Amino acid sequence: MKNNFYNQSLITVDNLTKNDCFMLFERADEMKKLVLEKGGDDRLKRRIMAALFYEPSSRTMGSFITAMQRLGGGFVPVVGTSDSSISKGETLEDTGMVYSSYVDVIVMRHSQPGSVEKLSKKALVPVINAGDGINEHPTQALLDVYTIQNELGKLENLHIVFFGEMGHYRPVNSLAKLLTIFPEVKMTFVSPPEVKLQEPVRQYLRKNNIQFQETDDIKKVINDADVLYVTRVKKEYMAENLYHKIQGKYIVDMNLVHMMKRKSMVMHPLPRVGEIKEEVDKDPRAAYLTKQMPNGMYIRMALLDLILNN
Amino acid sequence: MKNNFYNQSLITVDNLTKNDCFMLFERADEMKKLVLEKGGDDRLKRRIMAALFYEPSSRTMGSFITAMQRLGGGFVPVVGTSDSSISKGETLEDTGMVYSSYVDVIVMRHSQPGSVEKLSKKALVPVINAGDGINEHPTQALLDVYTIQNELGKLENLHIVFFGEMGHYRPVNSLAKLLTIFPEVKMTFVSPPEVKLQEPVRQYLRKNNIQFQETDDIKKVINDADVLYVTRVKKEYMAENLYHKIQGKYIVDMNLVHMMKRKSMVMHPLPRVGEIKEEVDKDPRAAYLTKQMPNGMYIRMALLDLILNN
Amino acid sequence: MKNNFYNQSLITVDNLTKNDCFMLFERADEMKKLVLEKGGDDRLKRRIMAALFYEPSSRTMGSFITAMQRLGGGFVPVVGTSDSSISKGETLEDTGMVYSSYVDVIVMRHSQPGSVEKLSKKALVPVINAGDGINEHPTQALLDVYTIQNELGKLENLHIVFFGEMGHYRPVNSLAKLLTIFPEVKMTFVSPPEVKLQEPVRQYLRKNNIQFQETDDIKKVINDADVLYVTRVKKEYMAENLYHKIQGKYIVDMNLVHMMKRKSMVMHPLPRVGEIKEEVDKDPRAAYLTKQMPNGMYIRMALLDLILNN
Repeated sequence: MKNNFYNQSLITVDNLTKNDCFMLFERADEMKKLVLEKGGDDRLKRRIMAALFYEPSSRTMGSFITAMQRLGGGFVPVVGTSDSSISKGETLEDTGMVYSSYVDVIVMRHSQPGSVEKLSKKALVPVINAGDGINEHPTQALLDVYTIQNELGKLENLHIVFFGEMGHYRPVNSLAKLLTIFPEVKMTFVSPPEVKLQEPVRQYLRKNNIQFQETDDIKKVINDADVLYVTRVKKEYMAENLYHKIQGKYIVDMNLVHMMKRKSMVMHPLPRVGEIKEEVDKDPRAAYLTKQMPNGMYIRMALLDLILNN
Repeated sequence: MKNNFYNQSLITVDNLTKNDCFMLFERADEMKKLVLEKGGDDRLKRRIMAALFYEPSSRTMGSFITAMQRLGGGFVPVVGTSDSSISKGETLEDTGMVYSSYVDVIVMRHSQPGSVEKLSKKALVPVINAGDGINEHPTQALLDVYTIQNELGKLENLHIVFFGEMGHYRPVNSLAKLLTIFPEVKMTFVSPPEVKLQEPVRQYLRKNNIQFQETDDIKKVINDADVLYVTRVKKEYMAENLYHKIQGKYIVDMNLVHMMKRKSMVMHPLPRVGEIKEEVDKDPRAAYLTKQMPNGMYIRMALLDLILNN
Repeated sequence: MKNNFYNQSLITVDNLTKNDCFMLFERADEMKKLVLEKGGDDRLKRRIMAALFYEPSSRTMGSFITAMQRLGGGFVPVVGTSDSSISKGETLEDTGMVYSSYVDVIVMRHSQPGSVEKLSKKALVPVINAGDGINEHPTQALLDVYTIQNELGKLENLHIVFFGEMGHYRPVNSLAKLLTIFPEVKMTFVSPPEVKLQEPVRQYLRKNNIQFQETDDIKKVINDADVLYVTRVKKEYMAENLYHKIQGKYIVDMNLVHMMKRKSMVMHPLPRVGEIKEEVDKDPRAAYLTKQMPNGMYIRMALLDLILNN
């Protein structure tokens, strides 16, 4: 099987195939075993990863930096909350070329959709999109489908119910698009009308003949859900008044979880700010803390390995 | 002797025993030898430390990060001056669980007393308190007693004189409490009346039948001091007018040091902002720059080793 | 040949000799080969570098951190945009002593001229100046002359034309002074009258009997230039109205480059903010992105190696 990740950037999920996913999952399984048995190894020794985070991040940055070091590699942390604090106003293309001179792979988060692709165009090394504004977050989608595969044992004939804010939530975009490559997937998007699924994603689903519906009533679909994918209201991307209107309206508690099938999952990319009550944490369907988080590190280890080694 | 540090969090000095201290000191001696001879070794290879610093730090963070790397380990720097810049509003318990998924040990500083304990409750890996607001700083106290032991050759029958601001100064709390486990220790707290010793520490000393006094007159006790432990006025924790009232009033100069016994010590956790005049630096009793600082790294190396290896 | 870098600080270019430069260049050549063939090696294993950046930096910090890790060493990132965020008001001398207790070498950037020298005075380990305000940036000058040597095959009998803002631009200072050690170098400084070459540099050149001129007309000299060294208007160091007066006036485009000799170079320490049009990037004389940047890492690897190993 061909390693399509080798020496390539990962900007979007758009061109990923089932084969790509399963190759990554197999490598992630290997990484899990490696970490649990030995903590890691030296397969990325003398390889350096630049972590360019123009937006704050703890999960994604933390898991990438740990992933790199568990495989023996090094990292350069470049963190700032604005363009100017990192680049003094230089173009993303220049920044891409500059870091290409030093490191072997670039992981980048930025508030502007399309920014990571822009930087990658002049970069001479692979660039991984760690979130570009309200657009995409491909490694999140990959760890999500990996977690679904592990917990439900399959990725076909599933009903995924997205729940909450969609209008500014990149993990929804990447996951919804990535799910289209698996057979007979059904999706429901349950959101306040002000922050519905983004139009480009809606069109992507239609183009791929995916069965989906949009509603604001979770009760209608919760008992049929295989996965309840909960989102956070992205305060940082919206007007104050809109935030206060929708924050706290879409809450998952045990009343809701009790309506779900015995074999089903509650997921959330985290951080949560009250969207899932703590009472849910101990339910066996709760996958957000104990499944998605460690899988995030294994998937990122696998991805770095596949990109840097053939 | 049992290694009570192994796989445990270190949140407070409260339950530490003399045996714990001496086991740590012995390991720190070994670390000093190791660093001077070879710079370090690989005993923490493939182990990763998260450095969660919600407050600025250079000494503590710098020595922990160096300590980890000198033993072959890796680190994840997570630095921010507010909760939101690190966690976007998630609970400390969630942050604890998330980082537990990635790393082997968490070192944390935060402005809120009790915050580190809170995070540690859901963490699946050991958590080290690197300072929680005005509350505690246990590794500082450990390096302080280690330095006293090294310089004075004993930890019993000593008179420790704390000098300066106590009301918001976590190293005083941790050190005063830790000293209670050593026989016949006497303490004097010399401070402006506005920023006296914190009441919980006073009660802790009383409960442990420790001989101590509080005064605002250093002259009364300086000639009997074995250790003069100087503090910084913690501007970041107090009102502007209180700061200006007490800053610059409690200064250590050679006039004061000349009143001290020949075999005694001047200590300060640093940074100092004028509390000890530079003229004191060359006096053999000055331990803050050339003794406490390197010992900080050796103690943290020893602690990480004892926590992660049995 | 004696390694004059060994165990020494590098604060200024003032005392560097041709032999020093050529020893460094030779080591940098070796580093380039090493990186291209194997990514690096372990010659700095168990050595730790503190990266004290009191000013934002991506290029210099990124290349130093990468350099250290490619040689097997570790690093401590200490980043802040003000004194207080790093040091809570302690003196630079104290900070120097503190970090000396932990690490093997300190790399420092700061907004105040002379600050790095100040810190180095009490430091017990070598300190490398990574830029001190409008004063010096010696490693930039070293990578610049290394790039000139590589591209033009010589460092003598050259005409270097500096172009743009000189009044606040430390790379100009360091490079102009460093060039004085090579025979028959001629320099022209083309700048707006408000931001001419700094007087101490002018005096340094005179003292060393260097042939130089100052003008505001690039047309007069461009056809004789071997190197066109372009600068950025340092917004962060000047008044708003001065910035707007001079920004965008000194632009390099293909019209200008066409006037240059076939065998010549356009250099810029980067970041650029429009001073060199993108159309120039593909011209073979453009050295800023594809030559200077990678050379920056090789030179810093070479320097760290020469300082830490004899």
